[in-house]
Amino acid sequence: MSATRRCYACGSRETGLVARCSCGEALWLETDADSFDWNDVIDAPGMWRYESLLPVSAPDGLFAAAGGTPLVREPSLDAFAGARVHLKVEGGNPTGSFKDRGSALGLAVLQADGREEPAVDAVGTVSHGNMAISTSAYAAASGLPCVVLVPEDIPESRLETISQFDPTVLRVAGDYGRLYERTLEIGPARDIAFLNSDVPLRVEGQKTTALEICESFAPDAPDAIVVPTSSGGHFSGIWKALRELESAGVLADVPRLYAVQAAASAPIAEAYDRGASEVSRVERGETVAYSIGNPDPPSGTRALAAIEDTDGAAVGLEDPEILEAQRTLASEAGLSVEASSATALAGIRRLVDAGEIDSSDDVVAVTTGTGLTDHLGSGSADLVEIEALEDRLAAFRDD
Amino acid sequence: MSATRRCYACGSRETGLVARCSCGEALWLETDADSFDWNDVIDAPGMWRYESLLPVSAPDGLFAAAGGTPLVREPSLDAFAGARVHLKVEGGNPTGSFKDRGSALGLAVLQADGREEPAVDAVGTVSHGNMAISTSAYAAASGLPCVVLVPEDIPESRLETISQFDPTVLRVAGDYGRLYERTLEIGPARDIAFLNSDVPLRVEGQKTTALEICESFAPDAPDAIVVPTSSGGHFSGIWKALRELESAGVLADVPRLYAVQAAASAPIAEAYDRGASEVSRVERGETVAYSIGNPDPPSGTRALAAIEDTDGAAVGLEDPEILEAQRTLASEAGLSVEASSATALAGIRRLVDAGEIDSSDDVVAVTTGTGLTDHLGSGSADLVEIEALEDRLAAFRDD
Repeated sequence: MSATRRCYACGSRETGLVARCSCGEALWLETDADSFDWNDVIDAPGMWRYESLLPVSAPDGLFAAAGGTPLVREPSLDAFAGARVHLKVEGGNPTGSFKDRGSALGLAVLQADGREEPAVDAVGTVSHGNMAISTSAYAAASGLPCVVLVPEDIPESRLETISQFDPTVLRVAGDYGRLYERTLEIGPARDIAFLNSDVPLRVEGQKTTALEICESFAPDAPDAIVVPTSSGGHFSGIWKALRELESAGVLADVPRLYAVQAAASAPIAEAYDRGASEVSRVERGETVAYSIGNPDPPSGTRALAAIEDTDGAAVGLEDPEILEAQRTLASEAGLSVEASSATALAGIRRLVDAGEIDSSDDVVAVTTGTGLTDHLGSGSADLVEIEALEDRLAAFRDD
Repeated sequence: MSATRRCYACGSRETGLVARCSCGEALWLETDADSFDWNDVIDAPGMWRYESLLPVSAPDGLFAAAGGTPLVREPSLDAFAGARVHLKVEGGNPTGSFKDRGSALGLAVLQADGREEPAVDAVGTVSHGNMAISTSAYAAASGLPCVVLVPEDIPESRLETISQFDPTVLRVAGDYGRLYERTLEIGPARDIAFLNSDVPLRVEGQKTTALEICESFAPDAPDAIVVPTSSGGHFSGIWKALRELESAGVLADVPRLYAVQAAASAPIAEAYDRGASEVSRVERGETVAYSIGNPDPPSGTRALAAIEDTDGAAVGLEDPEILEAQRTLASEAGLSVEASSATALAGIRRLVDAGEIDSSDDVVAVTTGTGLTDHLGSGSADLVEIEALEDRLAAFRDD
């Protein structure tokens, strides 16, 4: 297979392992979805139900475990958010984040018979977070060699997590921000498929988040989908899915797409606010939502196009409101998510306040990654003698 | 509802929030499964598909996200294990372990209308591991107060993970091993439901692991299910499910149940080896599989009965073979599991060597919890200047 790449912006077509159009914008795979119907969904595991919209069929092993994450109605969060909250729990993926969808699709294509031309038989990624872990895991499952480029100052604990899957890990000295585009050039020249966060194969896998959401609501549709947004790759995949479902005529209404960012690095929200049609690089700021603190998102302009197309918006959130949403998700809904994922709930609240989302709207917050691997605030506990336990429990009951 | 408890050993019936029969053995819920058919499975999320075999219907929110974990065929592990390996990936649960099934079922019953009599409106658990995290999360989702009893020397990082769900955490000074049974006495007296690991409500939730496995194989059945075993609660739930499916006549053959333990604390395996019908307390030993290092399993004797009933066995595994299995799961299958879960794969290998499992057998390894929250070995990475990157990547490709 050698799926055609197409530019969402200018419509140009490309073939091969290319991520960028000559116009400069990001490419995605061309999919003919016009004849798709919900009856075409097959009884395959996880994200592989949508075989007719994907370039490859369900492999076994870890691949089969990707996607198929819970989508749950969460009334206990309605008061906090101000609308009807549904959570898409991406922490349920094997490595704990939505990144598994793109890693699984990418590596399934690369290892498939009649695979991608020109043939590559190694993969790489530029990440020290969820994408590094996910790409390494699926590379291990596929048997392909994998190289992960991390920053020089990566914490030891993160290196341990990535290393368990036995990739080659290289710490890169110099401007880490330059690496993303640089590897997209080096990769094809060196027969390495860099599964960076907005490349066509990864975006194609990540569109399944929205396919699952829309299938759950069919024949209705949610009013809005709120997505923590960094590179814009996941946001682009979700938009692509909505366009495909719309072209197939199976979407009652197109949900509005909202990109939520950390205010400290919110180039998409800033571009949206000033009515720009292109995203510009901003200064990098410190934020608790470090997973999405991307000052120069490669698919930022594509995300803006998605917002305009679906009548959505973008917002940047301050750390205190992100942390409050994170605490609320844990203490009210029992769900531990990383701070960057909590921006989805914080974002709904802000968008309701701004009049973008109505209190009667069904809104899906995409919680992109688990919080159980994060180092959280602090914990403390009273010490009690075993002989005094019954009295202490009585006191607990009477609290 | 006030489901009847029944003793698997002597057949006595009890009502109310009681965990132990007057004969001393563990109780479980009485379920009439005789008329069950796979067509009774409903289109509900996760573990709630088996409504007709459960005492409560699917709640929403976090509850709906429990269970429904991937079951994947993993050919890349066949050579290591010596049989046909399938993995039941319990790390896909919202808090990363199978404990969510029991927590969800228990709290769903306790918060349901017409709930358990006598009414309790607080929950507790004795755990500093996965069960503490899971019980706290589902208590938060249910809105019930929760008390977690942890040992005096609990690491700060674990306390942080538990505390995000806002339970009352008490560090208990004294013999932590005594607490388990002590709380089963104090609980009813103080109207606190202690969802300890082998109580009837938790076992009832944990039976859904086996319902999902058997439904996936139906109309066939796996030859064997291999389960990391600590208290014997999960093992008991899996056995209960098999008995129910057998009584309903929907199981082609009853899979053999294998309990795998860490040799350092392997009371069930030791009792099995000496042909005993009861499990005796052993000395606690140090093991990398600390989650299952239980020297005095409350449902150990019930696990022995399950082994005898299904023609299974029990084995104790040494740390080096556990660690080798853990590394193999990550590097060959891309799956990160905690060391205790890796005993399932190590166990298959040992049981094949012992002639208990045949090379043509379809064997399900229940990987009970994710390894992504563990602190793993070590990681290291070469440092490379960005200008030298292309040459370094070329070297990687040529490796």
